[in-house]
Amino acid sequence: MLAKEIIKKIKDAESNITSVIFVGCGASKADLYPAKYFLEENSTKIRTSLYTANEFNYATPKAVNSNCIVITASLGGTTPETVQATSKAKSLGAYVITLTHKKDSPITKDADYVIVHGFEKSYAEKLEKMIYALQLAVEILNQFEGYANYEEMINGFNNIYDLIEKSAATVLPQAKEFANSYKDENVIYLMSSGATHKVAYSTSICLLMEMQWMNSGSFHDGEFFHGPFEIVDKDVPFILFMNEGKTRPMDSRALTFLKRFGAKTTVIDAKDFGITSVISEKVADYFSPMLISGIFRVYAEQLAIARNHPLTKRRYMWKLEY
Amino acid sequence: MLAKEIIKKIKDAESNITSVIFVGCGASKADLYPAKYFLEENSTKIRTSLYTANEFNYATPKAVNSNCIVITASLGGTTPETVQATSKAKSLGAYVITLTHKKDSPITKDADYVIVHGFEKSYAEKLEKMIYALQLAVEILNQFEGYANYEEMINGFNNIYDLIEKSAATVLPQAKEFANSYKDENVIYLMSSGATHKVAYSTSICLLMEMQWMNSGSFHDGEFFHGPFEIVDKDVPFILFMNEGKTRPMDSRALTFLKRFGAKTTVIDAKDFGITSVISEKVADYFSPMLISGIFRVYAEQLAIARNHPLTKRRYMWKLEY
Repeated sequence: MLAKEIIKKIKDAESNITSVIFVGCGASKADLYPAKYFLEENSTKIRTSLYTANEFNYATPKAVNSNCIVITASLGGTTPETVQATSKAKSLGAYVITLTHKKDSPITKDADYVIVHGFEKSYAEKLEKMIYALQLAVEILNQFEGYANYEEMINGFNNIYDLIEKSAATVLPQAKEFANSYKDENVIYLMSSGATHKVAYSTSICLLMEMQWMNSGSFHDGEFFHGPFEIVDKDVPFILFMNEGKTRPMDSRALTFLKRFGAKTTVIDAKDFGITSVISEKVADYFSPMLISGIFRVYAEQLAIARNHPLTKRRYMWKLEY
Repeated sequence: MLAKEIIKKIKDAESNITSVIFVGCGASKADLYPAKYFLEENSTKIRTSLYTANEFNYATPKAVNSNCIVITASLGGTTPETVQATSKAKSLGAYVITLTHKKDSPITKDADYVIVHGFEKSYAEKLEKMIYALQLAVEILNQFEGYANYEEMINGFNNIYDLIEKSAATVLPQAKEFANSYKDENVIYLMSSGATHKVAYSTSICLLMEMQWMNSGSFHDGEFFHGPFEIVDKDVPFILFMNEGKTRPMDSRALTFLKRFGAKTTVIDAKDFGITSVISEKVADYFSPMLISGIFRVYAEQLAIARNHPLTKRRYMWKLEY
């Protein structure tokens, strides 16, 4: 595994890594979240943070130094804020790893290590950035602190691609039904918990707001009962991403409430796709976001067709300077 | 200062504090954010995280142990998830501090230290929970790692109450104008950056969704250009909270874009209220969220009047079991 070798090399050079900082923008930032979530839950010594790139640039954390690993990500490798963050991290002496789909793109210039991930070929490849980021987090934890479920994670990495592909191949009927039912909604809310929290976020800000120009909001479903649930009424549209793992009771509680008051509810549930038949339940939490993202991509494609609004259509992005 | 004494006592008992974990729900979670943001930016050794309480309960971070300080918050001291988190942190051997407005409320039962904050008497008192949380973070950093701008922070704590009160007293005309202009909106978006990021979030999920049953979404304005900005069109309603401090360029960039495309934009700008005339510009970043929250409360009150929907009106919260 490439991630294993990279972290081994960093450890050989610096055995005292105190911080791991993830940096990205939009969907790339969200794709780094499961890795950050994993480290935050399981590490007892290593500091970890996730920054939108310009906040990293303008209010650079003091911990960015030669005891720090900075992991940046940009699909095309040209996101200006993330390219700048990569260079800034390098200039401050951090060990810099970047994840990108484009070999030799600008973001690779100042990175010590580059991982090139797939994207176009399959639903699973679209999640490879998220998968590689999690691999890096697992290697960091295992090599610097030790991690009891390391073998279960390796097995998960071996099986997650197939699981995504097989699952995505089964959902076309429900995706079409979703698309026809939600295509004219005025606003759509997204919720999840655990490692999948930011899949709800990126679905809201990227797939709906950016790619469909639809109004949307998202929040952690543990927060739902502390504010947002007052918006619930009959037919208010929600999409709930349910995890297999420790935080599932939060997802279930939100679902019960949505059903009780007749909200319009679409659920993508990792459990329905047999995640624990191929990945240990000890670590299924951390693979739920990849599986759910891969499945929801089919839903988003159908929504785009139903709305006659391609996922690639933009009015500002890539079209003007801002 | 109470915070100083509490942290001194903890340090006397345990000189090796490796993690500081903040736990709350909804507005109380958001009120802890400036403290977490401050530590995350300025600490090089101490791990820090902010959890919604039930995620802390179900997927308890491994770092909750006798080298950890857990800081919980609940206005009324009865939020079940946060009461449970407080007890769980205590049972795992952490040093537990709780912030509440209600002396002897359930959340105080298992806390090692209790800070009772004000709430009803003034706009500034409504921010006292946020202020005390930041004081705790400053004391932790200063006592465990040292902090160069400590005196500037103390001065800030001495001056922020007056600044909030004086500022809030001047905004009634613009608050009424905002209320009349936004009262019938279908959806309202909120943005900010830096320490104020989660004021945008709590304004969205609490003041608008919970207390006004208005549709809303929020995001970091550094993320705006990586998805959400595609929703911008003439008259789409936004509220932008502008910081005085390092992340201001992000706020300004978002404002320029909103104006360029004719979005309906309300700005609350910490700079307009002279924050740096009474608080050092070295630390103004961390006081912007209190100032902006205090000012926006006047706007929310006027919105409630214009909509004939009191801020205390609920359909589910406090009314049923869920």
